[in-house]
Amino acid sequence: MEQKIIAFDLMGTDGGVKPGIDATLTFLKQNPDYKIVLIGDEVEIKKNLPADFNKKQIEIINEKNVAKMKDNNARTLLKENSSMMSALNLIAENKASSVLSAGDSGTYLALATLKLKRINNVSRAAFMPMIPTLIENKYFLLLDAGANLEVKPEYFEQWALISSIFYKFLFKKENPSVGIINIGTEEYKGFEYHKQANELLKNNLNVNYKGFIETRDLLQGNIDIALADGYAGNITLKTMEGTVLNFSKLMKEKLMKNFFRKIGALILKSAFKEVKERFDYRNVGAAWVIGVNGIVIKSHGSSDAKAYLGALNQIKIAIESQVLTKIIKALE
Amino acid sequence: MEQKIIAFDLMGTDGGVKPGIDATLTFLKQNPDYKIVLIGDEVEIKKNLPADFNKKQIEIINEKNVAKMKDNNARTLLKENSSMMSALNLIAENKASSVLSAGDSGTYLALATLKLKRINNVSRAAFMPMIPTLIENKYFLLLDAGANLEVKPEYFEQWALISSIFYKFLFKKENPSVGIINIGTEEYKGFEYHKQANELLKNNLNVNYKGFIETRDLLQGNIDIALADGYAGNITLKTMEGTVLNFSKLMKEKLMKNFFRKIGALILKSAFKEVKERFDYRNVGAAWVIGVNGIVIKSHGSSDAKAYLGALNQIKIAIESQVLTKIIKALE
Repeated sequence: MEQKIIAFDLMGTDGGVKPGIDATLTFLKQNPDYKIVLIGDEVEIKKNLPADFNKKQIEIINEKNVAKMKDNNARTLLKENSSMMSALNLIAENKASSVLSAGDSGTYLALATLKLKRINNVSRAAFMPMIPTLIENKYFLLLDAGANLEVKPEYFEQWALISSIFYKFLFKKENPSVGIINIGTEEYKGFEYHKQANELLKNNLNVNYKGFIETRDLLQGNIDIALADGYAGNITLKTMEGTVLNFSKLMKEKLMKNFFRKIGALILKSAFKEVKERFDYRNVGAAWVIGVNGIVIKSHGSSDAKAYLGALNQIKIAIESQVLTKIIKALE
Repeated sequence: MEQKIIAFDLMGTDGGVKPGIDATLTFLKQNPDYKIVLIGDEVEIKKNLPADFNKKQIEIINEKNVAKMKDNNARTLLKENSSMMSALNLIAENKASSVLSAGDSGTYLALATLKLKRINNVSRAAFMPMIPTLIENKYFLLLDAGANLEVKPEYFEQWALISSIFYKFLFKKENPSVGIINIGTEEYKGFEYHKQANELLKNNLNVNYKGFIETRDLLQGNIDIALADGYAGNITLKTMEGTVLNFSKLMKEKLMKNFFRKIGALILKSAFKEVKERFDYRNVGAAWVIGVNGIVIKSHGSSDAKAYLGALNQIKIAIESQVLTKIIKALE
């Protein structure tokens, strides 16, 4: 496969197909060696593409159906047509190297696992968002962010290996540090699986393991990878998102309270913009589905063009550094 | 007992005995019908009291030993002298109506449970901090914030009853709303105990139950009481604390970057102060230990006089509204 091909499922988003297509056009202009297969409602897609779009770089697959699990059961969806399945089929048939979707998380994870299968020696797939910290250009990976409520100690070891490889290439850092989220840093804290995972990782020479960590320290950027069961990971992620959002809201309300303050806020506009930019999830804009045979990434359902472009750029790094091949080898 | 008496364990804090004593003096001046028993290093205590302190309002118990569990076992501490045990003994002997300590959380909860015993029909004691929201003067209660990693559905029902009574009197609101923290609001989400607790609470007419809630919405102030197992509750609390702290740090760094911005920051000083004040845990300053036979409150180890005064004022409300008697009756 000479050309690098990304399968992009445009359905099931909040904002229609336009933001994804805008990001596609920008990305392809900057990356002439890539091709993107747009999957969705062809009429809508064509409305948002220039009439003379480059057919060597853009292909359209017409598939309007949106995949959405009912009762947590994905198996029936495997046999039904949907834009998500069409995208995953392209990878399974080796016609694309990566898939991007902003559709339903649970459905995506389940279908990716069923269709692409897990990598050898990986027990469970996981969600892995990239999260900004206080330090400029410094992110940490959080996993599992919600796919597996119940975990076994060996999942942590496998996820540590996979995420360390991702981190190394995405953020260009050798030996990224790994911690396990717990309710305290002392070794006796937590559930039995915390203690067992702690022992496993302490003895694994391929992981730069730092022990238990607390979520209050995550944003300081001292740790590169935070491992958690999907229950704690999901709660941590949502608490951080909500706190940043609500804190900003309160700040905005206070800054706009009177004319005098509005002047002050105007002077500080660039400062606020820098803070906002730092915590703008759209810069990286996505969560990886790790542990499956494919480069699979999930964007927010409410993503705009900037967020999709962030995700496409992440995919590019993953493809070009051959992250997947390296992970498969490391798990052998 | 005519006079209202608070037992105040001054040991085991980060900042010595002074902040607690300063708060005591302020509180007693405002509340002449109260008495506070200060427990700690008598020499240190006397250094920080005026020579002519009012002996009708202040009593000193000299006890320097700090209680701290080793290996999660509190039973041996029950028999040993410590400032915390002296404070708890006063309640157990009916010589005080309430106890305040900033000592080690786990030790405090364990000793309070062992010494004061649980209220009839309460399976487990829990930690219950009061947390500010976006809405002015609006707090929510979070429980359990870390005492019980493993829970049973009936704990949620008992905690819902207890916290509803606390909320009603502390924040003067009838029928406070109650939600259970989960990874989604849909009824099929979470562990088995989430689903069972959900059913129990839906059928309990004494609780204004709203179903599952997500932690990203907590600070909006739409829910009065957030129930969780101690694992999720502890992680939620620490994630919120850390996010507010680190977000503020980043903001400060950006605002001080150059002279021009410093001018803007000066204009907005009052606005920032208002935001800081809203999220200042010291205004309420404490977490309740609920489920035991006593009004038991825990302050941060790093509390200053303002934080201790906040805690003393909460105790006052709890004593004067007879929260404990009402809880015991409701659980009968």
